[in-house]
Amino acid sequence: MSLREVRPGNAGSRFLAEIREQPAALLRLLEQAPEFARVAATMHERDARLVRLVGHGSSDNAASYGIYAFGLIPRWTALRDAITLTVYYDSGPTLAGSTVIGLSQSGRTPDVVEYVTRARRNGAFTVALTNDPASDLANASEAVLPLGAGSEQAVAATKTYLNTVAGLALLAAHVAGQGAEYESALRETAGLLSGSLSSLERLVAPLAVPFSYIGRMFVIGRGPEYATAREIALKLLETCRVAAEPLTATDLSHGPIAAVDSLFPVWAIASDDVTLPIVTDAAERIRAAGARLVASGTAAGSIEGADYTLPVPIPPKPLLSPILSVVPGQLFALALARAKGLDPDEPRGLSKVTLVR
Amino acid sequence: MSLREVRPGNAGSRFLAEIREQPAALLRLLEQAPEFARVAATMHERDARLVRLVGHGSSDNAASYGIYAFGLIPRWTALRDAITLTVYYDSGPTLAGSTVIGLSQSGRTPDVVEYVTRARRNGAFTVALTNDPASDLANASEAVLPLGAGSEQAVAATKTYLNTVAGLALLAAHVAGQGAEYESALRETAGLLSGSLSSLERLVAPLAVPFSYIGRMFVIGRGPEYATAREIALKLLETCRVAAEPLTATDLSHGPIAAVDSLFPVWAIASDDVTLPIVTDAAERIRAAGARLVASGTAAGSIEGADYTLPVPIPPKPLLSPILSVVPGQLFALALARAKGLDPDEPRGLSKVTLVR
Repeated sequence: MSLREVRPGNAGSRFLAEIREQPAALLRLLEQAPEFARVAATMHERDARLVRLVGHGSSDNAASYGIYAFGLIPRWTALRDAITLTVYYDSGPTLAGSTVIGLSQSGRTPDVVEYVTRARRNGAFTVALTNDPASDLANASEAVLPLGAGSEQAVAATKTYLNTVAGLALLAAHVAGQGAEYESALRETAGLLSGSLSSLERLVAPLAVPFSYIGRMFVIGRGPEYATAREIALKLLETCRVAAEPLTATDLSHGPIAAVDSLFPVWAIASDDVTLPIVTDAAERIRAAGARLVASGTAAGSIEGADYTLPVPIPPKPLLSPILSVVPGQLFALALARAKGLDPDEPRGLSKVTLVR
Repeated sequence: MSLREVRPGNAGSRFLAEIREQPAALLRLLEQAPEFARVAATMHERDARLVRLVGHGSSDNAASYGIYAFGLIPRWTALRDAITLTVYYDSGPTLAGSTVIGLSQSGRTPDVVEYVTRARRNGAFTVALTNDPASDLANASEAVLPLGAGSEQAVAATKTYLNTVAGLALLAAHVAGQGAEYESALRETAGLLSGSLSSLERLVAPLAVPFSYIGRMFVIGRGPEYATAREIALKLLETCRVAAEPLTATDLSHGPIAAVDSLFPVWAIASDDVTLPIVTDAAERIRAAGARLVASGTAAGSIEGADYTLPVPIPPKPLLSPILSVVPGQLFALALARAKGLDPDEPRGLSKVTLVR
């Protein structure tokens, strides 16, 4: 079994084309670097050092990464803000001193647009990180950071997720005066991704059939890779109808481990990082519970006894690992969806732009 | 089928006893009110207005509630902080201006103790909210807020979760100068819970058999009830081995709705609140997807076409709804675990105090 070629009418052909386009999309993001530098300068000028990230779905998963990008590069606090507090309860605090970043591929997510509109009124510095610089979200914000991913056709996001993650890293780097360094690291990461895609496609394809009858999975990661765990779980939910739940490797032991058994496999993202021992410890407990284990990430090889190992290259900065480690999950979602006769380009009940509140 | 009486040796007898003890446990928390007033005063004195909440499992679920308690009563920003940034990356920002609240029933969760220790060194005002005022966490913190829940024996938390939620409401109320008002509202809520427990037990029992063969569920809520969704999902995971995933009612539409079908039921928490229309809209989409639907909460009756309706009384303050709305989920977890031959007092692979990192 192998991933079929891109042919019109093939289930998932757009999804696959967009996965493959990700290295090029990353390079297009880097063309926007001067905008990121300008926004970072304004964050300093306005002393807007508390970073509030808002989005839904894949954008919210990228926000989980943003917490680490800001926490680790400039050492600023970033949070996934509670949208309802501002939008529904009208209870937003004074937001002077905050940068608000609205994350939306389409720029049309209603409560993100509304949140940003109100946050601006409450004194925040408002920024849109969006693939459509002419969108409502862009218009509602004081500054716009274009994702530059190019039009995304498959309903399940891939390249816009990757560019949102990379965009948050780039902005955090500019805030810390490390813009040029991260720009070059991101360029190199795009090259590593480009060079590993076809071997990853070959490596992932054989997993589809053994997982065809799996209804539920956990996906675990820690630190910046928790975002990857969330995004892989969401891909599996929306394209394969697998009840895939993301957990930090630590939270797995605070209850959910009780549910793991031979029909409840776990996908572990292991990257070369200070949190790696937490993930390898969790993997041991998962194996002891008899569950099948898939290991991905830059340190996939250090998960002993994994049933499947999907390593990715080591990027020049450890913080950029999530850009690479999500890709085996995207490819697995495609292979599994096809094995189940589902079309990741058009999952049932979803549309590309979610206008639901 | 009915919930069996508490008899030693009965599966879940301790779990049930502790569910039933919750009204009394709430009243014991209120005896600690002067401590909450003192901590609130120190938060003002130290101008420590950014509230960082840290915990795992049920404590982290309660932290989701804390975001709303602080956001809606004093209108302060609270966040579930990223533990790894401080503990593993040693990258914590200067924390002057922050109150850190470590949440741990046992007071022994290793990375919560370590986080609080480092946060104190970095200038935060550190507070332990714990059931053991002599624990490591209490010793590491400048102030201790005792949960007063009494010893909890069942591995799956119930009364300590409820008291953590109530404790966060009480602290937020004292910060806003509304301590006495909320104290009296909490006392009244304990009475409402006491008065509704036996009818809830009767209402929930018939759900167990039809759900015995369900392997996966979504639990949705919005605003303060998102914490309830997380806690009910965790109870189902740890006591019933159901892959139950918590989602905000909005996030359900950003992908996961594609997985819902007649074998993938949804539990919706509907409370009388400005976010209710979001939940009723989501419920309509769930029904359209052919899923079975359980509605609980103070406004359970407004979810049209629900297969099961589990209403709870309306508390004197809408923000206190989560104290009541989690209880049908606890009772359902017990009934379902028993129907599946599982023991919620001792789920496989778990111990009462999780010392794993």
